[in-house]
Amino acid sequence: MVLLREEIGDVLRDARRQQGRTLREVSTVARVSLGYLSEVERGQKEASSELLASICGALDVPLSSVLRAVSEKFARAEGLSVTGVAVPDTVPADLADGLPGLRGSGLVSAA
Amino acid sequence: MVLLREEIGDVLRDARRQQGRTLREVSTVARVSLGYLSEVERGQKEASSELLASICGALDVPLSSVLRAVSEKFARAEGLSVTGVAVPDTVPADLADGLPGLRGSGLVSAA
Repeated sequence: MVLLREEIGDVLRDARRQQGRTLREVSTVARVSLGYLSEVERGQKEASSELLASICGALDVPLSSVLRAVSEKFARAEGLSVTGVAVPDTVPADLADGLPGLRGSGLVSAA
Repeated sequence: MVLLREEIGDVLRDARRQQGRTLREVSTVARVSLGYLSEVERGQKEASSELLASICGALDVPLSSVLRAVSEKFARAEGLSVTGVAVPDTVPADLADGLPGLRGSGLVSAA
């Protein structure tokens, strides 16, 4: 099972690396310990709502953007978990109506 | 400041009420205590990633949908915090280009 804290950690780490910043820099600005930020990024610790807001502020990334990215990762995972059961690579659109998460996943054919 | 746990709680409570289900029903299916679910819905407790997944499962709502709804609520709040500084009720569209979050907020005029 994919967990929320793991996906949030991935998105935060990607944002920090894209900015070329170190754990130390971001943790200092966010006023969290380096170890805490590292654990959050690795999905080993649940970030409290307050500290998640602080980390997003330090990265200058809106929390809405982080959540949208995480939502999209989950949507793909949910689509894949459906197809992982018994469904072929592409599914007729009318069949896909009964499979939440497939639409928009790229796994539904137009026909 | 709007907090993640509060927005998640609102979305979960709305989903449960739309289904006409009680705290007791959903908490039983999710295998969490009624008090815990109630506190999560009121934004008073951070749901762990595991229990959040369990609650979404009990509601039969994909976590991706919950996060998308929460992301949209934050995006609106972030837009409002911009307009809260110095911007009038409506803003010309060309000016709004420089104000992330204003588009789609209903605060940008078409002209």
